[in-house]
Amino acid sequence: MIKVALDAMGGDYAPSVCIEGAVSAVKKNPNIHVVLCGPEAEVKASLEKLGYTGNQISVVDAPDLVAMDEHPVMVVKKKQHSGLVTCVALQKKGLVDASVSAGNSGAMMASCLMILGKTCDEFSRPPIGVALPTKDRRIVLVDGGANVDERASTLVDFAIAGSAFAEAYLGIENPKVGLLNMGEEEHKGPAVLQEAYQLLKSAPVNFMGNIEGRDLIAGKADVVATSGYTGNVVLKLLEGFFEMHQEMFGTIDTPAGKRFSEMWDYRATGGALLLGLNGIGIIAHGRSDALAIEKAVEVAAKYAEADVANKVNARLAAIKSEEAPKA
Amino acid sequence: MIKVALDAMGGDYAPSVCIEGAVSAVKKNPNIHVVLCGPEAEVKASLEKLGYTGNQISVVDAPDLVAMDEHPVMVVKKKQHSGLVTCVALQKKGLVDASVSAGNSGAMMASCLMILGKTCDEFSRPPIGVALPTKDRRIVLVDGGANVDERASTLVDFAIAGSAFAEAYLGIENPKVGLLNMGEEEHKGPAVLQEAYQLLKSAPVNFMGNIEGRDLIAGKADVVATSGYTGNVVLKLLEGFFEMHQEMFGTIDTPAGKRFSEMWDYRATGGALLLGLNGIGIIAHGRSDALAIEKAVEVAAKYAEADVANKVNARLAAIKSEEAPKA
Repeated sequence: MIKVALDAMGGDYAPSVCIEGAVSAVKKNPNIHVVLCGPEAEVKASLEKLGYTGNQISVVDAPDLVAMDEHPVMVVKKKQHSGLVTCVALQKKGLVDASVSAGNSGAMMASCLMILGKTCDEFSRPPIGVALPTKDRRIVLVDGGANVDERASTLVDFAIAGSAFAEAYLGIENPKVGLLNMGEEEHKGPAVLQEAYQLLKSAPVNFMGNIEGRDLIAGKADVVATSGYTGNVVLKLLEGFFEMHQEMFGTIDTPAGKRFSEMWDYRATGGALLLGLNGIGIIAHGRSDALAIEKAVEVAAKYAEADVANKVNARLAAIKSEEAPKA
Repeated sequence: MIKVALDAMGGDYAPSVCIEGAVSAVKKNPNIHVVLCGPEAEVKASLEKLGYTGNQISVVDAPDLVAMDEHPVMVVKKKQHSGLVTCVALQKKGLVDASVSAGNSGAMMASCLMILGKTCDEFSRPPIGVALPTKDRRIVLVDGGANVDERASTLVDFAIAGSAFAEAYLGIENPKVGLLNMGEEEHKGPAVLQEAYQLLKSAPVNFMGNIEGRDLIAGKADVVATSGYTGNVVLKLLEGFFEMHQEMFGTIDTPAGKRFSEMWDYRATGGALLLGLNGIGIIAHGRSDALAIEKAVEVAAKYAEADVANKVNARLAAIKSEEAPKA
């Protein structure tokens, strides 16, 4: 049984969609147990309303509430009895295998960093790894929005972490890494990207050079490394384009149409993994509905089952120790 | 008669598609005259091959060739007899109304800047204004990729220039300006965006705050201000997504489907305008085909006819002179 802790109060439509999503997830997956963290009475009342009486869901009381704009570090320090912090703390104690929140993503990031800890000190800033759809398969986009104002060396860390994630989760051997830029030539783009390009040439990744937006969609890279800001813009733009498409045409009734609508629906991605932590912290979309939460719980269980965090960490540690003598 | 100078040697598929595009443009538009700038013998031979014998196209000999990776400023200095530089120089002399190149975009930018000149000294770095499709109408994205590593004050200039362009070309009064960011709150995103947010609050534009990718697609802003790097990533990503869609589904046979395919085809945009120059410099897509060139010529003529450059410049000058006493 895989145990997934879920912040019952996280996201724009919490708690109802969280509880609904948890119920769907356990009904469809007999190997998943969800620990709902939130105000006990409220959560239990919702469960009862949904008529759930099984033993694959339990509730841990966490009465504190976290607002979307609260300062991340303050949340970890002052809101220890929130659903968000509690679901991470349970993992630290070894009581659950993964933690999911659709709430304040900065606070989730800070909780994971401060409570679970980084896998190695050299790995500067844990990024969000996203299994992004492209034309015919998923690739890894990193960072999906955990960081801002990265140095060139941090972008190299993103490339390394993304490669490890692509290997461990998507099973891609020696993944090709592209640096998202506004041209293919190495002197193109902002200074920090030009510097990162030079560092990546001798980094322990399979660097293919700069990649542009068109080739990202065409799936020409296995891993796309970019700043948290740009990565987040990319994610939300694709989400918006897909939603416009669905609104205009619905799901097109052909095999390709069904596959397209399934693959590009942000809910199918089910939340993104923080890379380089001692554990599994999943950031789900703030506007998750019940289906998105269900998928996030399923993805969390998949990550836990495939031991993704440990595999990524082993790879990071190996690379970082190889790099050390050069420094 | 509107006179448009076209760099016959610009772009990945020059010269053939340039000459083909010019012929289509003049056949469809009796009010457009195209001046093809390129190696005379070669260009004339192509025209003959296409059987064009009308008097809406003339050829100006410009034998120098410009590579895609040549240094922009060097091109202006050393390649004065290239198609690219010639088509801008003709405008400076008052012989044509607009100049179009699908070639080295940095060189086109430098030519326009050095030969046509900036409209006011205070306007730091001319950006590319793109009439970007969204769900149901075009809005302005600025900068589409002319600049990198902008300061916060330059992003404010982009917002001003984009507003002026939206008014002059799209006829939007008092356009709402959004700053492309990874969250709506003003403390979100890279430091330069946080600083730009504060400056925009008191800038002479109708600032609506940060905007995310989803809302950009939904058309919630009239003008989206962003760095040249991010703007370029946005453009190419949308292009890639649209192309994938066309490859999968073709043009969907409904009114909405036809409208979608027409509007989102990058060729329909027909090239982007450099803002804040004393003239009309159009940067067309490097991989333009004949249709894209035809549209770029048509758009150039539209800009000239609507006197867009002068209107944008008048607005910029007025705003910059109002701003001056505060400095």
